[in-house]
Amino acid sequence: MMKPIRVGILGATGAVGQRFIQLLVGNPWFEITALAASERSVGKPYGRACRWLLSADCPPSVREMIVQPTEPGLDCEIVFSALPSSAAREVEERFAAAGYGVLSNASTHRMDPDVPLLIPEVNPEHLQLLEVQRQKRGWTKGFIVTDPNCSTVGLTLALKPLHDAFGIRRVLVTTMQALSGAGYPGVPSLDILDNVIPYIPNEEDKLVHEPRKLLGTFSAAKGEIIPAEISISPTCNRVATRDGHLEVVSVEFERKPSVEEVIAAWEGFRSLPCRLECPSAVEPTIIVRREPDRPQPRTDRDAGQGMAITVGRVRPCEVLDIKFVVLSHNTIRGAAGGSILNAELMLAQGMLP
Amino acid sequence: MMKPIRVGILGATGAVGQRFIQLLVGNPWFEITALAASERSVGKPYGRACRWLLSADCPPSVREMIVQPTEPGLDCEIVFSALPSSAAREVEERFAAAGYGVLSNASTHRMDPDVPLLIPEVNPEHLQLLEVQRQKRGWTKGFIVTDPNCSTVGLTLALKPLHDAFGIRRVLVTTMQALSGAGYPGVPSLDILDNVIPYIPNEEDKLVHEPRKLLGTFSAAKGEIIPAEISISPTCNRVATRDGHLEVVSVEFERKPSVEEVIAAWEGFRSLPCRLECPSAVEPTIIVRREPDRPQPRTDRDAGQGMAITVGRVRPCEVLDIKFVVLSHNTIRGAAGGSILNAELMLAQGMLP
Amino acid sequence: MMKPIRVGILGATGAVGQRFIQLLVGNPWFEITALAASERSVGKPYGRACRWLLSADCPPSVREMIVQPTEPGLDCEIVFSALPSSAAREVEERFAAAGYGVLSNASTHRMDPDVPLLIPEVNPEHLQLLEVQRQKRGWTKGFIVTDPNCSTVGLTLALKPLHDAFGIRRVLVTTMQALSGAGYPGVPSLDILDNVIPYIPNEEDKLVHEPRKLLGTFSAAKGEIIPAEISISPTCNRVATRDGHLEVVSVEFERKPSVEEVIAAWEGFRSLPCRLECPSAVEPTIIVRREPDRPQPRTDRDAGQGMAITVGRVRPCEVLDIKFVVLSHNTIRGAAGGSILNAELMLAQGMLP
Amino acid sequence: MMKPIRVGILGATGAVGQRFIQLLVGNPWFEITALAASERSVGKPYGRACRWLLSADCPPSVREMIVQPTEPGLDCEIVFSALPSSAAREVEERFAAAGYGVLSNASTHRMDPDVPLLIPEVNPEHLQLLEVQRQKRGWTKGFIVTDPNCSTVGLTLALKPLHDAFGIRRVLVTTMQALSGAGYPGVPSLDILDNVIPYIPNEEDKLVHEPRKLLGTFSAAKGEIIPAEISISPTCNRVATRDGHLEVVSVEFERKPSVEEVIAAWEGFRSLPCRLECPSAVEPTIIVRREPDRPQPRTDRDAGQGMAITVGRVRPCEVLDIKFVVLSHNTIRGAAGGSILNAELMLAQGMLP
Repeated sequence: MMKPIRVGILGATGAVGQRFIQLLVGNPWFEITALAASERSVGKPYGRACRWLLSADCPPSVREMIVQPTEPGLDCEIVFSALPSSAAREVEERFAAAGYGVLSNASTHRMDPDVPLLIPEVNPEHLQLLEVQRQKRGWTKGFIVTDPNCSTVGLTLALKPLHDAFGIRRVLVTTMQALSGAGYPGVPSLDILDNVIPYIPNEEDKLVHEPRKLLGTFSAAKGEIIPAEISISPTCNRVATRDGHLEVVSVEFERKPSVEEVIAAWEGFRSLPCRLECPSAVEPTIIVRREPDRPQPRTDRDAGQGMAITVGRVRPCEVLDIKFVVLSHNTIRGAAGGSILNAELMLAQGMLP
Repeated sequence: MMKPIRVGILGATGAVGQRFIQLLVGNPWFEITALAASERSVGKPYGRACRWLLSADCPPSVREMIVQPTEPGLDCEIVFSALPSSAAREVEERFAAAGYGVLSNASTHRMDPDVPLLIPEVNPEHLQLLEVQRQKRGWTKGFIVTDPNCSTVGLTLALKPLHDAFGIRRVLVTTMQALSGAGYPGVPSLDILDNVIPYIPNEEDKLVHEPRKLLGTFSAAKGEIIPAEISISPTCNRVATRDGHLEVVSVEFERKPSVEEVIAAWEGFRSLPCRLECPSAVEPTIIVRREPDRPQPRTDRDAGQGMAITVGRVRPCEVLDIKFVVLSHNTIRGAAGGSILNAELMLAQGMLP
Repeated sequence: MMKPIRVGILGATGAVGQRFIQLLVGNPWFEITALAASERSVGKPYGRACRWLLSADCPPSVREMIVQPTEPGLDCEIVFSALPSSAAREVEERFAAAGYGVLSNASTHRMDPDVPLLIPEVNPEHLQLLEVQRQKRGWTKGFIVTDPNCSTVGLTLALKPLHDAFGIRRVLVTTMQALSGAGYPGVPSLDILDNVIPYIPNEEDKLVHEPRKLLGTFSAAKGEIIPAEISISPTCNRVATRDGHLEVVSVEFERKPSVEEVIAAWEGFRSLPCRLECPSAVEPTIIVRREPDRPQPRTDRDAGQGMAITVGRVRPCEVLDIKFVVLSHNTIRGAAGGSILNAELMLAQGMLP
Repeated sequence: MMKPIRVGILGATGAVGQRFIQLLVGNPWFEITALAASERSVGKPYGRACRWLLSADCPPSVREMIVQPTEPGLDCEIVFSALPSSAAREVEERFAAAGYGVLSNASTHRMDPDVPLLIPEVNPEHLQLLEVQRQKRGWTKGFIVTDPNCSTVGLTLALKPLHDAFGIRRVLVTTMQALSGAGYPGVPSLDILDNVIPYIPNEEDKLVHEPRKLLGTFSAAKGEIIPAEISISPTCNRVATRDGHLEVVSVEFERKPSVEEVIAAWEGFRSLPCRLECPSAVEPTIIVRREPDRPQPRTDRDAGQGMAITVGRVRPCEVLDIKFVVLSHNTIRGAAGGSILNAELMLAQGMLP
């Protein structure tokens, strides 16, 4: 058994930072050795600096760790970044330049041409971009690898086997997204009790572009990702669920599959991180439900410890070809858990120090 | 001032029956003279037979009325039917045969070729079907006129001016429907707290077919409605709101309009029931909101006393042509209020006794 | 018909400020002539400065009014203060010193010995304190009159006729308070979905002291209020309701009444503001429900346009004497509506300019 | 390692029946060998007979078990009864007469003088009643042991160490109870969204009497339980939480303790089932939180796998002596888990076959 990699968490006191801690405690490949947060928290024991939001108590092993400033100098090899996008640009680059591997959950660098936007089950080969990144930015050891927006992950995982098998042309997606996706304090209760908000700032733009990059191909010649030629039309809504983004999807294909062929493509899906025995990878990654009323956020979001996605209601679309519903846990699969799996994939492939 | 028409309510103790009462009390054209319900309630004063669900108390004027059996013999000219679909077929026909005008909110007869499915602002000319109906069924005075499903109304009202102006080819619609649409007791709280249910039994089929009939044309020669040639792909979801169905819509047109032209079509929309000064008609019928996050169920469902619909988020669709969001009050505009407006339109046109 | 009094609103853009506007528009005795708010809003039309939270739209009559700084110089005779407590102390005194009548909803001055804490139906005679106030503070025309905390109002109104009739010794009260009581943005949705928070900062202390002052007697000799000798033990909880504070109350009396005598005391209650025909006064002020499961926030909070309180579940207490449940609308009866009724009472008694 | 006891579940398809299954799967002392339910389900595989309500899927090990009629003849030594009270009286007695040990969650037999009402941490000595029971009823091997109502358990566990140390005289308790306490379908969503229901049928009576029996003493001479002389005044409310009953409690003592003494009594509490190493027993059973706003249903209901209770907000009461808040998981600690712990206690003491 190898020695665990030492990891730090940036933005450790926020909602996503807490998920990182919850998921990393007990992960056999990583050990939390540094927690960084904003000035207000620096110097305090984590247990006091942080208002713990998740059901269980703050894990004892981090409660007494002293929160440090968000500056290189942290005692770790890699950092998971749960920084807000505004802070992420400069800080993440500074860490990478200082030799840290940065696994970022922020949106800032996702669409940078030399930064891998990674879902390990979807596009592991995009990690080849790191060579381009290091050359271009002059980094020797550090790097930035990002995971997609929480609403992108479920959709793209569901589309991946279908795109491989049948070729996707056009996608219409309407989301019903959970409150935790807005962070904390996030959505005021007066805004959402007995209500739906049919708008999430900046969200739809991500759903238009991120899946195209994720499903694109790495061109070694050009040293860049050629985006998939897929048109995506999203509408994003906030609903009164705690966790779990539900997405209603209609797809038009190049080669029209039957409902059975779509289901077969999902059920036959096997992923690299599972083959590499990454601790956070689950099999099946894509769970197909045949009940007429599933998946539902409350019953299905925790499937595969929150790392699986669940699809259901697969049926012909009267306008495009096939329609279905997909659910993913937005703060596990769609945020902290996804970043951790990114790190695991890199470690399993010998790409971490 | 004419004498009000005497009306009865079938299924008076249920959720929709209560809305009929709430809306009819104070309506200057109608007077409630009979309340009918199932055997369990017959013979009791309405105030004791009924568990009143709406915010205010049961109106004093009906509290002491004795609930009667659901049989012809009621002291009234027309009946509003809030019967469950299972009971509606036989009962409604019996009332019509006995000479009552039946304004039905049940789904049973909606797609019958000789029964008008009516939204007064959309297809008032379909009332010409009544002549066919009387001939075919041998009714002399009685008739059946239906209003559409609660999720159909908002969509079809929004589509009407666009179909007239630009011709609609294909529609993708994802609904987020309120709890009151399932009646009472309806959805168990354990099923919907912190949850979304991506399925409503029998709902999507109605959204496929009803708008096609509503937007179709009456052929005097054939004595029937020629349905509009529109493909509609619906997905229906139940969310934790009390009232107000929110629908996310993408439309493909024959003649592609700009966003501004779509808005102009809505804002220029004038309706027959308003010109006829029907008491339940509102102007504007279609309210356009320009804020990025409207309409919302809680803030917009009561617009125009629940008889207006509200559209917003109008923008180009990356896959079809235009996308937008529409909200309508499901138990007022989408049920009792719609039926009452149907009756008002008929009265204003001299089609009631 | 007299000319309406010209009124301003301090803190006009907040949640309580909006209620003031909603309730004052259409009030025959008052006319809104000034809206003041924090620097961020000053100089903007109110409709753009304010994110309107209530169901209906912002009333057209105030939408174009320009928001002014919170400084004397406003064009009005009296101001309603919806200021946060922190800001209220200095600002309200400045307005009173400048000759404005200040009707305050802030907690700051409530317990000042020379400031009336007023519920018009409970202690109108406490307005005699104003003479003391003017002498002590050297104000000639201006004054400060406060209304109680939102959780105090329902309790105290329910206790008033019982205290008069039977003498109250001890009160145990457990509240379930609505989200709007915390203002906006207030309670994060992640904190309250599927949850109850058994703590509201600073709330219980108010429930201990304010009813004692309200039920106390004005001593002309001492120029002060002698508090009622009542022990009150409160526990305050936040629950997921929009409006309406529900309170479970047990009372010990000096002269033990029967359940019927308690109900008779409530049903016989007549109030001064009703006799004076104040526009916001309602009769009955105290509604008694006999159903086993009433009052409930959703069904009863709007009784009497939100100005009545509703009591129910009256029964013997196994530990003290009588227990019951009381509900009041926290932002109407318990805030803006209460302040407006205070002003109406003063106007009806010739105590406003 | 001994061989597990074979157990059956009566009412296996209901909400509490499902919790029994969820908790018993993996319990090292018991093995599910029979599932019984109403006629509608008999003969079907459990996985199809049952609409699984809990988050995770129905456990695979029971999915294929055939549901049997609720009649003696089940292949097991003891049965856990999740029957509705109406059905429980006759059925449970028939099973006991046939030699089965019956661990009941129904209310029917709780107050029978010869039936132990048992919380293993509170009154294990009450099991001596079983000898009386067998003599009186002529049962040779079978028995009935009950667990208390879900709202009784948390309160009584919290009171137990205080009663032992300081003597309890009077208790005022106001509950805020979760939806799952009403079973399934239970509370209609339209009744509880944006609402509180201040009434739960038959609930308060149980809170008056059950704690007195639980805290009473077994008199060997009389062969009965002498109830504790405690007056309890309950008010029970239903709120929109999924699981976890929150109770606000005020207590009057014979010997008045300080807040610190109360906390010390709780923190010093050690229980028999823990000493006996019962698998479902947890240490601490009573968790004391010192934050001002804890316990909360969502964050604390799963403490100790739902078998611990959490107390907080301990402070002097202005009317009685001490007040506090207590939370317990109503379907684990307050129902299925409590019954299982009862069986474990009996097994550990050699009282099961």
